[in-house]
Amino acid sequence: MNIVLSRDSQARMMEDTVANAEKHLGQFCSLLAAYTRKTARLRDKADQLVGQLIGFASAEPPELRAAVRSFAEALAQVQDYRQAEVERLETKVVNPLKLYGAQIKQTRAEIKKLKHAQKNEIKQLQKLEKLRQKSPSDRQMIAETSVQRASADASRTTRQLEDTVGAFQRQKLKDLQKIFSDFVTIEMVFHAKAVEVYSSAFQTLENYRLERDLQDFTAKMQGVYGHHTARPLADSNPSPPVPRPPASRVSAWVGGVSPTEWGRGAAGPPGRL
Amino acid sequence: MNIVLSRDSQARMMEDTVANAEKHLGQFCSLLAAYTRKTARLRDKADQLVGQLIGFASAEPPELRAAVRSFAEALAQVQDYRQAEVERLETKVVNPLKLYGAQIKQTRAEIKKLKHAQKNEIKQLQKLEKLRQKSPSDRQMIAETSVQRASADASRTTRQLEDTVGAFQRQKLKDLQKIFSDFVTIEMVFHAKAVEVYSSAFQTLENYRLERDLQDFTAKMQGVYGHHTARPLADSNPSPPVPRPPASRVSAWVGGVSPTEWGRGAAGPPGRL
Repeated sequence: MNIVLSRDSQARMMEDTVANAEKHLGQFCSLLAAYTRKTARLRDKADQLVGQLIGFASAEPPELRAAVRSFAEALAQVQDYRQAEVERLETKVVNPLKLYGAQIKQTRAEIKKLKHAQKNEIKQLQKLEKLRQKSPSDRQMIAETSVQRASADASRTTRQLEDTVGAFQRQKLKDLQKIFSDFVTIEMVFHAKAVEVYSSAFQTLENYRLERDLQDFTAKMQGVYGHHTARPLADSNPSPPVPRPPASRVSAWVGGVSPTEWGRGAAGPPGRL
Repeated sequence: MNIVLSRDSQARMMEDTVANAEKHLGQFCSLLAAYTRKTARLRDKADQLVGQLIGFASAEPPELRAAVRSFAEALAQVQDYRQAEVERLETKVVNPLKLYGAQIKQTRAEIKKLKHAQKNEIKQLQKLEKLRQKSPSDRQMIAETSVQRASADASRTTRQLEDTVGAFQRQKLKDLQKIFSDFVTIEMVFHAKAVEVYSSAFQTLENYRLERDLQDFTAKMQGVYGHHTARPLADSNPSPPVPRPPASRVSAWVGGVSPTEWGRGAAGPPGRL
């Protein structure tokens, strides 16, 4: 009976191998699919932010407008890479894991076949024991032949199963290595691209010239008064070689002396105020 | 009346500046907060995956066990960096944007003050026009004094407002540059760390020795049969025969109980909006 017991425990070990794979690969599949979905949602949120940034930039002074647009473009580019990440995760990580569902089903069917053969073998052996106790020599001979046949049948099935489970295990190890490697590669490529894109966006933001925008803002505020429009405005007057308003104007404004004071003075006698 | 009209349109421009800032910075705040939350959810999902990987590794052959554990550790490390990313985004991006709520409220109150002064000035000027038509010299003199007073009051308020809106604009430009730069820096640092961690995890996965695990697996399968133990074992560590699980688990599994997780997570592709 030893060989029957050990064959039974071998079958159980094979079942465990497959059951364990089914349980864990199924969980990996759903977790990695969820990870991919969450990544896609992060991309969506960032895309919304890109839209907002572009809308915002249009109403801002030229330097900030350029800086914000460049920031929005970088963010959009990272989302394109994130989109590629999502697609690759689906193709190279989630889908191969899904395929295990079918593969495991097949391996399970093989195991069932073996168990059936084993049951048959045990039945035959039990019959043989009974016949031995009664010891009618001719019937025992017949029974032994049928035991041998049952045993040979089970052995062949066992060998087939060993091959099946062995191949399954080999494929599993190979695929897991590939899937995890692919995951790491996909993530690595995405992160590397993001570093690249953000590095250049960082430079643009660092180079932002706040003072030029403030000059522009002040000029616009003053431009509301008609007599101030004669002042050189950098953006509205491209032809003459007077690109920037004098620095003194800004420092006067910053110092708390409002240039509008002068404007109003020019409109009427200064003594009236 | 020109100066009144231009002052009015200046006030409107100031209001627009503040209203525009309120609208967009509020939207940035909520979008960046959502981006941060989605990042946190991605981290949670990856953390779950780490737990699953560690549980899975324990039942796998030694080489895969080591490779999967190293992969899980890398994934966990990236989540630690993601956690730092989340915290930094909250502190340096979301919170400063939140503070604009209070700042904008204050600037709006200042604008209200100006508009009140302007209304008063317009009323006084209209009075003056009526008196001029009737031309009683004494009443006109009184009226002119009160117009001068109203005008001076409005001018002072205008100057104060210009300073307030100017300071608000300067602060806004400066803060936006800082907030966007901080966002880019935080993201850049996170992505760079992720590249670093995944690069080393990739090496470990590449070095995985599948054949050694397969030898180990085959040895275990054959070890179940007493007469096969004479075969040379690749991994000489003599692992004792593992106690088998109760039959109930096997029969439940054979009966068709399959992990409910299977395929559920992979239900639908995370569509790009």
